[in-house]
Amino acid sequence: MIRANDPGLKSWVPVPENSDFPIQNLPLGVIKVNDEHHVATRIGDYVLDLAVLNRSGLLGVDFVQRVFESEYINDCIALGKGMMRDLRNKISRLLDTNHSELASDEDLRNRCLLPVKSVEICMPVKVGNYTDFYSSKEHATNVGTMFRDPENALLPNWKHIPIGYHGRASSIVLSGVSVKRPKGQLKGKDDPAPVFGPTKQLDFELEMAFVTCKSNPLGSTININEAEEYIFGMVIFNDWSARDIQSWEYVPLGPFLAKNFASSISAWVVSLDALKPFRVDGPVQDPTPLPYLKFTGSHNYDIQLEVYLDSPMFIPQRIVHSNHKYLYWNMCQQLTHHASNGCNIEVGDMYASGTISGPIKDSFGSMLELTWRGSDPIKMPDGSERKFIEDRDTIIMRAFAQNNDVRIGFGEVTTQILPAD
Amino acid sequence: MIRANDPGLKSWVPVPENSDFPIQNLPLGVIKVNDEHHVATRIGDYVLDLAVLNRSGLLGVDFVQRVFESEYINDCIALGKGMMRDLRNKISRLLDTNHSELASDEDLRNRCLLPVKSVEICMPVKVGNYTDFYSSKEHATNVGTMFRDPENALLPNWKHIPIGYHGRASSIVLSGVSVKRPKGQLKGKDDPAPVFGPTKQLDFELEMAFVTCKSNPLGSTININEAEEYIFGMVIFNDWSARDIQSWEYVPLGPFLAKNFASSISAWVVSLDALKPFRVDGPVQDPTPLPYLKFTGSHNYDIQLEVYLDSPMFIPQRIVHSNHKYLYWNMCQQLTHHASNGCNIEVGDMYASGTISGPIKDSFGSMLELTWRGSDPIKMPDGSERKFIEDRDTIIMRAFAQNNDVRIGFGEVTTQILPAD
Repeated sequence: MIRANDPGLKSWVPVPENSDFPIQNLPLGVIKVNDEHHVATRIGDYVLDLAVLNRSGLLGVDFVQRVFESEYINDCIALGKGMMRDLRNKISRLLDTNHSELASDEDLRNRCLLPVKSVEICMPVKVGNYTDFYSSKEHATNVGTMFRDPENALLPNWKHIPIGYHGRASSIVLSGVSVKRPKGQLKGKDDPAPVFGPTKQLDFELEMAFVTCKSNPLGSTININEAEEYIFGMVIFNDWSARDIQSWEYVPLGPFLAKNFASSISAWVVSLDALKPFRVDGPVQDPTPLPYLKFTGSHNYDIQLEVYLDSPMFIPQRIVHSNHKYLYWNMCQQLTHHASNGCNIEVGDMYASGTISGPIKDSFGSMLELTWRGSDPIKMPDGSERKFIEDRDTIIMRAFAQNNDVRIGFGEVTTQILPAD
Repeated sequence: MIRANDPGLKSWVPVPENSDFPIQNLPLGVIKVNDEHHVATRIGDYVLDLAVLNRSGLLGVDFVQRVFESEYINDCIALGKGMMRDLRNKISRLLDTNHSELASDEDLRNRCLLPVKSVEICMPVKVGNYTDFYSSKEHATNVGTMFRDPENALLPNWKHIPIGYHGRASSIVLSGVSVKRPKGQLKGKDDPAPVFGPTKQLDFELEMAFVTCKSNPLGSTININEAEEYIFGMVIFNDWSARDIQSWEYVPLGPFLAKNFASSISAWVVSLDALKPFRVDGPVQDPTPLPYLKFTGSHNYDIQLEVYLDSPMFIPQRIVHSNHKYLYWNMCQQLTHHASNGCNIEVGDMYASGTISGPIKDSFGSMLELTWRGSDPIKMPDGSERKFIEDRDTIIMRAFAQNNDVRIGFGEVTTQILPAD
């Protein structure tokens, strides 16, 4: 039992009911105060500035100041999961009602505990390498049914390999950053030649991504039983996609401009430690994976996932309700597979899950699947319909794990779509 | 005319005949001296330490010292192509026989002009994002003929789109770094299930890559007439590939573990400026590309490319003789296409060409093509054959542009293959 996970803990910092950020969460992120970037954690509607806190001495002597006075959490999480567990336990103790060192120090408290609305929230991670997996069987089956053959929807390799591909690190942006509708080459099946123009099939993909905190040297592999030591935590990940660009460009080398115009992430990296109470078994894997992908224990997570479509014309409509636990391939399998050829993993890499779809229609994680490629549009309260995402629409993704004791949430990813130039 | 390109220039530094690095080249790279990384250039068999040179004042006052006292050339080239042209002209002047400021300062000369064998040569670029294109028509046709349909070898999108995909930045290594034979999932057509083991079809791909020196904001595009301002220079690029891993994993999202175990590059980034005398027209593009890809001027380069196979059993055998000019899509088209959806280009990105094959067999840029998927092995002097690359084989790639006046070369990429664990 990790001390900071104790569901009985209460904080002297007010935490609204149903907040994603109780004292049992304590994710890591980055804030900007007085033009300086600091690593911070979040509790309720406050952020706790770890650079200011560490300088005060209340975190002890174990943490080098520079890892908190940083533009990104990379150097901090690079200290390793043991140190991060220690950090979370120490912060938990300082915020606990039974401890007064920080609570009673009004000056320090005023300098390090800041209303979240008063600070700028920044990109938490400098993403060195970004990979997107394709690990939801329901999603791969839906796509295979629509684009290939309903009788053989899953390709032969899918149940043997956690299929993945490399994505673009530079265009991963934070929640709140608007995304411009991309242009690209479009060609309908019967068009004689492609034209260049704004995508007509802009879509979201509901994903989660994990962030690595440990590296392996090039040429070495990662045993599946040690994979978790490399995984610090997770964020919500919206893998924006332009379906018409994708269908024309993607053979034979995979998606490229259909994806790399933007991906959006949530601001707070929630540790696997905080999510420990929500571990569940994943789907049965049949056929049994090759030995290097065989794992012990439970490595799926019961995290509820929601997508809302908001518009100037109506209030946010929930259009997806899915769950991280549906993923066929778990994160340990993904990472072990990724390094199985000797590929070197780096601190701050981001590994997204692929669209997380569940078994029934309202759990499908993309417009492509929800409207079955536009053939079954979603009706909106103002009488309009959506086959894909329109200009000025806002997509909001939320994720949280909840049981009778505690709720560990990720906040949200909110992104408005602006018209093409 | 760029002053430093004058073919009449001679240097007081001895430059061996047929050296890749005459005074007209002056590429950028990184050396390590006394445990410090410095940006350097190369002339003949010497390196010129630009950090020491700039500190002496001989480069004038235009260059901030920190861009040369750096682990990578990124901050230096980020000054822009105008400044890099100025830098090259200034270095050229100092090395010119008609100028004595540096030649006559023995103390400074001894500190900044070092035999290349006496220093450690390092990775020149911190690669933020790496993309691999697929821009040789001959290569795409060969692959399409072997794997799909000889009658329709080129896919319908190929002549409209400079096809590309994202690769792994972390595993790009320098010439001289050995590469271990990767393991992965292998499944023959008639095998009931995959097995995990060392690749039996390890291959090289003969490519060149360009390095960017300018960024565009996310959501903005790059006009093709301005694309060259973003391109600093080029290196030789060996895109190591495991064909058996590739054929089992690559549908539907493209190559992944078949490629990301390693890519090898040459040490000196040769500027487009230095290559200017070798511009030639590329192949006629028919159909005419969409307007955003239409360019003026000549943007292909007459750069001879060679691959040698070396082994403990025989002396290096030249197995490929190709040319950069064969590329169907040029670098300006590649970059403009990449940013056409608003994708942000960053300083230090690496963009590889894809395998550069020519029209005849000895110009094919991979073993896959040279041996036609292993069906026509290459005979070696010791009586052995090669379908693909064996353990302990060394692949050497060379690139140079040469006319009656001058030779601008890239040095080489030398990589030995070590057995799998």
